[in-house]
Order: sequence, then structure tokens, then C-alpha cells
Amino acid sequence: MNSSMIRFILGNILKTEAALLLLPCLVALLYREPEGLLYLPVAAAAFLLGLAMTHRKPASNVFYLKEGCIATSLSWIFLSFFGSLPFCLTGEIPSLTDALFETISGFTTTGASILSDVEALSHCSLFWRSFTHWVGGMGVLVFLLAIVPMSGGSNINLMRAESPGPSVGKLVPKIRYTARFLYLIYLGMTALEAALLLLGRMPLFDALCTAFGTAGTGGFGIKNSSIAGYSAYIQWVVTIFMILFGINFNAYYLLLFGKIKQALKMEEIRYYLLIILVSVGIIFLNILGICANAFDALTKSAFQVASIITTTGFSTTDFNLWDESCKIVLVLLMFVGACAGSTGGGIKVSRLVILAKTMRKEFMSYIHPKSIKKIQMDGKPIEHEVVRTVNVYFITFMIVFVLSVFLISFDNTDLVTGFTAVAATINNIGPGLELVGPSANFGFFSPFAKYVLMFDMLAGRLELFPLLLLFHPSIWKDLFVYKRSMYSRKNQS
Amino acid sequence: MNSSMIRFILGNILKTEAALLLLPCLVALLYREPEGLLYLPVAAAAFLLGLAMTHRKPASNVFYLKEGCIATSLSWIFLSFFGSLPFCLTGEIPSLTDALFETISGFTTTGASILSDVEALSHCSLFWRSFTHWVGGMGVLVFLLAIVPMSGGSNINLMRAESPGPSVGKLVPKIRYTARFLYLIYLGMTALEAALLLLGRMPLFDALCTAFGTAGTGGFGIKNSSIAGYSAYIQWVVTIFMILFGINFNAYYLLLFGKIKQALKMEEIRYYLLIILVSVGIIFLNILGICANAFDALTKSAFQVASIITTTGFSTTDFNLWDESCKIVLVLLMFVGACAGSTGGGIKVSRLVILAKTMRKEFMSYIHPKSIKKIQMDGKPIEHEVVRTVNVYFITFMIVFVLSVFLISFDNTDLVTGFTAVAATINNIGPGLELVGPSANFGFFSPFAKYVLMFDMLAGRLELFPLLLLFHPSIWKDLFVYKRSMYSRKNQS
Repeated sequence: MNSSMIRFILGNILKTEAALLLLPCLVALLYREPEGLLYLPVAAAAFLLGLAMTHRKPASNVFYLKEGCIATSLSWIFLSFFGSLPFCLTGEIPSLTDALFETISGFTTTGASILSDVEALSHCSLFWRSFTHWVGGMGVLVFLLAIVPMSGGSNINLMRAESPGPSVGKLVPKIRYTARFLYLIYLGMTALEAALLLLGRMPLFDALCTAFGTAGTGGFGIKNSSIAGYSAYIQWVVTIFMILFGINFNAYYLLLFGKIKQALKMEEIRYYLLIILVSVGIIFLNILGICANAFDALTKSAFQVASIITTTGFSTTDFNLWDESCKIVLVLLMFVGACAGSTGGGIKVSRLVILAKTMRKEFMSYIHPKSIKKIQMDGKPIEHEVVRTVNVYFITFMIVFVLSVFLISFDNTDLVTGFTAVAATINNIGPGLELVGPSANFGFFSPFAKYVLMFDMLAGRLELFPLLLLFHPSIWKDLFVYKRSMYSRKNQS
Repeated sequence: MNSSMIRFILGNILKTEAALLLLPCLVALLYREPEGLLYLPVAAAAFLLGLAMTHRKPASNVFYLKEGCIATSLSWIFLSFFGSLPFCLTGEIPSLTDALFETISGFTTTGASILSDVEALSHCSLFWRSFTHWVGGMGVLVFLLAIVPMSGGSNINLMRAESPGPSVGKLVPKIRYTARFLYLIYLGMTALEAALLLLGRMPLFDALCTAFGTAGTGGFGIKNSSIAGYSAYIQWVVTIFMILFGINFNAYYLLLFGKIKQALKMEEIRYYLLIILVSVGIIFLNILGICANAFDALTKSAFQVASIITTTGFSTTDFNLWDESCKIVLVLLMFVGACAGSTGGGIKVSRLVILAKTMRKEFMSYIHPKSIKKIQMDGKPIEHEVVRTVNVYFITFMIVFVLSVFLISFDNTDLVTGFTAVAATINNIGPGLELVGPSANFGFFSPFAKYVLMFDMLAGRLELFPLLLLFHPSIWKDLFVYKRSMYSRKNQS
């Protein structure tokens, strides 16, 4: 295990976070809030620790998927810990557990909150809370890759561990350029959304925070009523941008370079839009009777479907009060999630498409036992290895899900609350149903349950394996016991 | 498609059912119930139709897995249809949908009832209802294979389609002897349970019906309170026999032939018993406070765990009133199910063990990327094909499950009712939670929802693919359009 490289990456992450923590200070300056001062010592601590960790260059550049996974999960844990300290220091979230929950929920773009009154927060804390979504959406390691010149090594292993979806290819030969491209598209789209929101007469602060929440598919609102209080125009802008941020970013890359045909051929995106269309249809017909008019019903159903499938989690209405069939549709969408390579969570449309195709292939083998056909996607056959990985992902997901629901059940909440609380966190959505519905919050859970849910948020965002690896004893043995042995030699044996 | 062979099998099934329908007539004679007379015309109709269908010998003996699946699913549908007619004729279940639900629930050994007052039924109907469990438990085609000398063909394909679990081997070289062995063990164990129940001063009729329900892991009670009204001795006898009938029957075969070591080495059984032990422990500790004493708590927890994991569905208490963590354990056990090759339903322990091992293997590949190791079970490596089939089964199970929950949701019952109603039917258990809890019944569902649940019961019992194949258009084209073409020639092309 190349632990000196992991240390080096963690140090860089902390230095990056120190810089990011200065942004809420700026916001505090504008609004003349004393809370902003308390972001400074945290930034300083993160910077100093980061400096100490990056002082010595790593002994070796060799870097495998295992190290990529460990570096990624530890980065996210460090990031969340330091990110939560300002909330404690300002006293806005006095309990460290709660502050950690809120910050992990932010970085993992979940948007599940323990706060019952969001509007009581200072502007700088509201900004930091929404900004964590933006940072977490595209991934902080991808950000690091984009800006910090890292010394050699297989950076793709870092990116692969952090990026959502079954497979991440390099868009351009150099991973660093890919990371930059992704961040540029991300930044551009966020700016465009904020501009369109400003056009709808949303205040600048609200527009920025809402755009951060949409771009990262996070879902922290800055109002207690989430997006319900804004105009229909604003709701539609958010709806459309939620859907756009749920699309595989490779498509935008292809579009930018004029490869429109190739972008339109992406099967995942077509299924993604189809699922949205069908779901909106079902819910629209169902809530037509309880809405003011057809346009209102369409606005609400489109917003909620987009919010849940992209795993954003904003709300314009309390869908907990809708019919059971609507709720089932929403619960199913929670698991579907957005496209791979987007900022959204969930199982991902492409994985489900591969699973469905695997099932279809099995049928065909019953009917035509002699036919041997590979599963295809985007017109190309899928490697057996990809299919296998998707299967394993699905199984692992289910096991983690089921265990979490069991552990949560000791809180003795009703089954729907427990089930949807885990679904909403592991899929990085935010609100669930019943006691964790859109008009409620996660504050009532016991600390134990909160830690389980934090684990689920991180596991969901990092796509299970990187985080689960941390629980394997051999990793820790490698990390500490063999720390000083030459890595490259050990790896050969 | 060899449709003449399918016709021949269906005919034999109907003739067998005609004979079985005479048993409730005998019961009616003993109790002097006029309802018994109405079983006769149904038996006659089944016999005559069966005779007509078997009059002409099939053109060819060639018989593939596809035909095995189709023959099996059609058999179960025919069987359920004729089996439900007496309930309609006697007026005890006037609606055909309800009667069909009850009969499918019987044959599939689910035990979900639409009746609110079971005790109002005549003895002959109660007997028939419990007897369907016994017939369905080991499988009616297996029965056919055991007694009717079928003309050549690959009978293993019939048995494979009907038997629960990932893989059915021939125990002895001739499939017919395997089938006989299985039925002899089944009969012997049923008789032993009935004898032990009689020792506990249970009336003969009750002992027989309870033994049928236990042996088939069905769970239809003949009292409104299920097994709650009987003594602790009787409850323990039922508990132990439920667990025994949930064990892979291959183990009994091995034991009978003195291969004790080999039987004890079966990993699936060890995990099965471990899961039972842990679950009883959790529930015991949880309900200790609300039970009369420790023995009472142990009796109740052991009974309920055994009843749910073996997918029997008897109850001695309303577990709907237990703590959420107990309910979650029970819901999880619903999906776990019994061992492969037993009469129980669910996903089956061996499948879950294989899935868990697949996950573990993936972990190891992160930690030791170069190690290539096959998954092992019972000390032998598992073929890749088995792992793949288990994966596909799990995925298909989830898809059918999710779609069913969605279709049921149009009844607008609460989510827990809808979720557990599907869980209890697709896993062939019987009671779920809330509105379908152990003290309630399935009568309130709309006819549409009832048909969805009937489909789930059959899909669960036949392990998905045989039933799902019926919905593939090419099967029907094969069955009717090419009916008269020479089968063997067509298959070559």
C-alpha cells in the first residue's frame, strides 16, 4: 500500500478545503455576520494540517485502484469532518453528530437535513451548506486533479473511485484535461442556471444557492418550504436544470465537439428521458384532481419527478400526502437515479438498463438455447466484465440497504420511515416519506441511526466499494504495518 | 415446440387431480357433509378432460427445458382452476376470483387467505384447502413423474422447472426413482408429524391438516387463530417440523443412505440454521418484556421465525404488534426463505450465500487484483453458469417484485401493506404486515390486485422463469402456429 501517496492526497484535499472555507467568510463580510469569523480558524487548521501532510513528497508514484479507493473515502471523511466544524463553532448546529450529518449530507449531495428551521441560519452558513453540494457534485478529487499538478501516477484510479456510474473513460488522453473539461461544463451550466433564475427575479443569494443545489443534485433549500415559495417560472428553470444535471456529462462533451449524432445515440439518456416522461404522466393524471389546474399539476409532477430521479431532493409540495401509487413511483425513482457520469446518485439508469438486458438475454436462452449473443449498449457489445461488475454492484447495494434498514429499525420508527430514510440517504436524495417526508427532517433519529445514515450517504456517493474497503482489516494492516516497506517491491511479491 | 407432449402432460395432471378430488369426498362422508357431493362433478369433469387430452399419444418424446417450463406453468394454472371450482359450487367462496386466489395460494403453499372466518368452512373444504398445500409442496409434476410411467423424453426438464432452488441434480440415475424417493421421505415425515401431533391430543382432522400445512410449508390454518389455540407442545412440534421441511431434501436422502458426514457438510443447511438461531435470539430479547415468561417468549419467537423463514406462514401471535426491529427481521426472513430443494419458498439460502460470496470475491479482487479464485460451496468450486443464473434470478425477482408493488399500489393501501402483501405472496409465505397481517386477510384487495398477487404466488413457486415465459409471444406462436410441423425437424433448422 502506497500510504505516503494517500497522505499526500489527503493533505492536498485539506489545503483545497481551507481555500473553499474562505468563500463563506466573504459572504459573511457582505452581510456583516460575525459567524463568518469562525470559518477562519477552521480554514487555518485545515491549511496547516494539509501543509504538514504535503510537506514531504510521496516516496513512490505507483498508485493502484485499491489506493485510489482508500484515498477517496478518507478524503471524503476528512472533508466532511473539517466542513462540519464551522456549524459547531457558530453554535448553529451545536451537536457534532448533527453538524457532521448535515455536512456529509451536503458533500454527498444528499440534502437530508437535521434542521427544522433552515431560515434561522446565517447567510454564510447557508452559503457553505449549499456550496458543499456544488463541491461534492462533481467530486473534490476530480477538482484536485483539475487544478493541482499531481506528480505522475495513475490518476485515473482516483477519478474512477470517485465518479458515479459503471465506467469512466478518459474523454481526452490526459486525465487532467478531462477533469478540467468536466469542471468547465459544470461551472458553465451552474452560471447559466443562476442567470436564468436571476431573470425570474430571484435574489442573487437565493439564485446562487439554488444553482449550487441543482448542479450538485443536492437539494438543500435555503427556505423552510424549499422551492415551493418561488414562482412557476423559477420552478420550471430548476426542473429543467435538474434534468440536465442528471444527464451523463460525456454527452455535453460530445455536443461541445459537434458530435451531436453520437450524443443522441446514447441509450442511457434516452431511457432516462423516457422514465421521466412516463413517471410525470402517471403522477400528473393522479394529482390532477387535487391541483388548482392542469398547468399546476404538470408543474408539480414534473418538478417532483425531476427532483427525485436526479436525486436532488428539492420539493414544491408535500408528496407525502399524495396517493400511494404516486409515492410508489417516487420511491422507485429514488432507486433508479440519474445517468452514470452525471452529478446524480441512485443505482443509475445505465446499470438498470444492463440488468434488464441481462434478464432479457436469459429469456432468450430459454427460447433459443443455442443462441449466444452479447448484451449491447449504444450499439456496441458490453464486455462480460462490465456486466459482472454491475451485477455485483446491485447485490452489494441490496445487502448494504437491507442491513441499514435493519440497524435503523432499532429506533422503532415506522417501517416506511425507516425504509425511505435509508433509500433517501444511500441514493443521495434527501427527503423520504412519513417522518422523513419533504416537510420533515432527520433530526429525531438517535445518534446511532444518524451514523448509519451518514455511512449510507457516503457509501451511495462513492458507489459502495471504496467506502466498504475501509472496513476490511487487511487494508489497515497494509496501511500501518507495512508502511515503511518499499511499496513497489512488496507489490511484485 | 412439442405441443402434443405438453397436452399429454396436462391431461395426466388433470386425471391425477380428479383422483385427488375424491379425498375430500371421503372426508365429507365421514362428517356427513352434503358439500362433499359437489366435489364429484368437478372430479368427473377433470377426469374426462384429462382422458380426452391423453387419448392420443404424443407425436414425439423430444422435450427441452422450454417445453418443461411451459408444461409446468400450464399444469399449475389448470390445477388451480379445477381445484377452485368446488369452493364456488359449495358456495363457501362464491366469487371465482376469490376461490382461485385461495386455491393458487394453497397449491403454491403460500397460505394467504381471502377468508375472514375459516372455521365456517365445511370439513371437506378445509381438508381440500390444506391438502392442496401438501400436493403443491413437493410438486405435482414430481408426483406425476413418481407414479405415472411417462413415455421416455427428458423428464429432468420437467422436474427442473418445478423444483425450488438453483440446481436440481438427479439423486439416483433414473429421475423416476428420485421422484419416488422424495415423495417417500415427504410422506414419512408428514406421517411422523401427524403422529406427534396426535400424541399432544390434537384431534385427528386437525393433526392431518396441520401436518399438510407444515409439510408443504403452506400455512393455511383451520382455526381463525391459526396455531395460537393449541398447546405449547403442539407449537413446538410444528416449529421443529417447519424447520425440518425447510431443509434441502438431499440431506435426508444422504442421511438415509448413511452418508452423514456429507449431509453435515452442506453449507446451505448450516447457514440456514445459523440465520434461524440469530433471528430467534434478536426477537426473543425484544419480546421478552411483553411475554408471560422466558419460555413463552422463546416459544413465540422460535415459532414465528421458523414459520416465516420456511415460508409456512402459521402464526401463534399477532407479530404486527411487535417492535419495528422484530418486524424488519421477519420481513428480511420472508426474502431469505428456506433451503433449495425443500418445500419452502423465498429466494433460498443457497442463492443468498452465493450472492454474498460473489460480493466477497469482488472485495478480494480490489485487495489482491491478481488473485483469480472461483467461488466455492460445500468445498467444491461453483460453475460460472450457476453464479450467473443466481445473479439473473435475483435481478428478475427484484423486477417482478417492484412491478407488482407498483401495480398493487393502485388499490391505494398503505405502503407497508402493499410491500408486504407482495413479499408474502411472491415468497409463498402468507401473512404480511398491517392490513395483511396474521390476524387479517387478503379479501379486501380489488380483483385486479388479487390477480397480480396470484401471478406473484405462481411466479414465486415456479421460480419466475417458467411462468414469465408464458408471456413471451414467440412461445404462443410456437404453440399454435407450428403445432402440426414435425418438431424434431424444426428444431434442427
